[in-house]
Amino acid sequence: MENKVIYVAGLGLIGGSLALGIKRDHPDYKILGYNRSDKSRNVALERGIVDQATADFKEFAPLADVIILAVPIKQTIEFIKILSEMDLKDNVIITDAGSTKGEIVEAGEKYLAGKKVRFVGSHPMAGSHKSGAIAADVNLFENAYYIFTPSSLTLDGTIDELKGILSGLHARYVEIDAAEHDRVTSQISHFPHILAASLMEQAGDYATEHEMANHFAAGAFRDMTRIAESEPGMWTSILLTNKEAVIGRIDDFKERLDAVKELISKSDGDAIWNYFNHAKETRKEMQIHKRGGVESAFDLFVDVPDEEDVILRILELLRGTSLVNIHVNEENREDINGILQISFKNAKDLEHAKKVISENTDYKVHIN
Amino acid sequence: MENKVIYVAGLGLIGGSLALGIKRDHPDYKILGYNRSDKSRNVALERGIVDQATADFKEFAPLADVIILAVPIKQTIEFIKILSEMDLKDNVIITDAGSTKGEIVEAGEKYLAGKKVRFVGSHPMAGSHKSGAIAADVNLFENAYYIFTPSSLTLDGTIDELKGILSGLHARYVEIDAAEHDRVTSQISHFPHILAASLMEQAGDYATEHEMANHFAAGAFRDMTRIAESEPGMWTSILLTNKEAVIGRIDDFKERLDAVKELISKSDGDAIWNYFNHAKETRKEMQIHKRGGVESAFDLFVDVPDEEDVILRILELLRGTSLVNIHVNEENREDINGILQISFKNAKDLEHAKKVISENTDYKVHIN
Repeated sequence: MENKVIYVAGLGLIGGSLALGIKRDHPDYKILGYNRSDKSRNVALERGIVDQATADFKEFAPLADVIILAVPIKQTIEFIKILSEMDLKDNVIITDAGSTKGEIVEAGEKYLAGKKVRFVGSHPMAGSHKSGAIAADVNLFENAYYIFTPSSLTLDGTIDELKGILSGLHARYVEIDAAEHDRVTSQISHFPHILAASLMEQAGDYATEHEMANHFAAGAFRDMTRIAESEPGMWTSILLTNKEAVIGRIDDFKERLDAVKELISKSDGDAIWNYFNHAKETRKEMQIHKRGGVESAFDLFVDVPDEEDVILRILELLRGTSLVNIHVNEENREDINGILQISFKNAKDLEHAKKVISENTDYKVHIN
Repeated sequence: MENKVIYVAGLGLIGGSLALGIKRDHPDYKILGYNRSDKSRNVALERGIVDQATADFKEFAPLADVIILAVPIKQTIEFIKILSEMDLKDNVIITDAGSTKGEIVEAGEKYLAGKKVRFVGSHPMAGSHKSGAIAADVNLFENAYYIFTPSSLTLDGTIDELKGILSGLHARYVEIDAAEHDRVTSQISHFPHILAASLMEQAGDYATEHEMANHFAAGAFRDMTRIAESEPGMWTSILLTNKEAVIGRIDDFKERLDAVKELISKSDGDAIWNYFNHAKETRKEMQIHKRGGVESAFDLFVDVPDEEDVILRILELLRGTSLVNIHVNEENREDINGILQISFKNAKDLEHAKKVISENTDYKVHIN
């Protein structure tokens, strides 16, 4: 099998991590990189993330068997235009890494039509608080969803070929229509970011007249506003490239707020109880039955006493078991909290942990 | 100093934990308890949470120096009415544990007026996913806010006397006007619960037509809907006893959603960027400058590799240091995440941890 040439445009966290993931299973592939700024380009070369790097996007495009555009959405579309005017290898695969897919797939179909290229949209669903090639991590996409959104230029076998090239990412690959991808993410990601930012803005304004709001804000408020600290530029482009779906969620949500307001105004206790209970049951449903759903699928809950080194004691029992997540929160109890939650990558590790903790401690252990 | 008689009505998580906290510093106090159902009453007796227990609220009321009503809001008001018709000890202190304070303080002032009793509202800001006397915990209120809302029946010295009685809770005591308490909590707790429940309901409905919404829901969505699993009955009474403030937050929030919608419709990228950036800056402000604010004040962040036992290794270095919170999340990176966050109770522990981790590992350690 011939050694492919992979061209990664954009050597930030995502592009750099994709390059590392490809290298892991395909050390013989030649990985070329583009980055406008010197910094990440030099870091990528120093870390061996890429074999060669350029500041001129056009330079390496004609050499590539696969071109991955890991740059902001607007620039991704610009690069697709540039590629449409270049002589590329026959059947080159062009893909991207944007958080919205409709406009990018549309641009691919529009500008690349008639060329001997294959185009498929990609959304590797991962991110980090860190950025730049310096933060690139070969494990960034492990167990994360890697979503393919096919276009009219996606031929039979294109996605399977890409899966083979990306095998070292150890991601969970899913194929979905671009418009549906944007609708789904508007509900579970884009609109929630608006809720978080607006709640944060509202509380900040309110605190100027009600100062204790700064002090009483508890775990629930913290969790609901955490993503309000996301990178503004990225979320601005996401909203601008998914307008219809996001506005649909806003309008729908305002109606739900009106309905709750009406129940409160009428002091309809039964209806308010049903409203809260329905939300509770809905979430439990998602948690328990949906693999990769709202909650990590393999969670273990341990009721731990408020004692020193209790977490250390449990982790010593779990030595060698790889945890996906560990969380305990005792600093404020105005919410559903107060237990040690440990998430595992698979049911085997979960069962093992449940067994050893039950056998070696008197802590109550439960699955949910 | 004479040994006081404390009467705790309601032996659930809150009442039971209050009783245990009082006992810790005042083992000689006599603690009497009321609970309607046998279960928590018997558990409270078995665990020694109370010295005597009754199923008849009136039975112990005349014996008490302090009466703590730790029952639902509506029942608290009913008990205040009952107490107003009884012969109680002179200068008995009557207080409660309700999550909203306006209606309870109003009831106290209305029904207890003219009696030789002292009344002050209380809101111990703590909770747990657990409930009942079985879950009562002497440490439940440690470092939590315990809010006093004075009434016209709160005499000089009443609150100081209560602080002395409650010293074993190790809580942070704050005094605030009842109406202001309800306004502040409507913003940082009550309205956010509506947002979480409505988002959960919306996503559940959406997922019936867009099934992948169940699968792509990530850390951000999970955190924003976590409190949607709170106990419906409690939150129903909270909304019903804080209608005006909560409806005010709903109306204000709808205007904010309209504003964002307008920016999206106009594709005003600069304004959307400013909106997200302002929310980001506002939250950072709260995090960094507000003790007991949005974030625990003494957080340490450690950039950890995705290796087995890395958390164990760090906790071994921190052996004997008491953590308030530890959190790492690698299962999904579609949000601000991917580092180990450890929260400490004070700056000394934080500095110690920073030092030992820096000296003994090559992990990057930062304060924010």
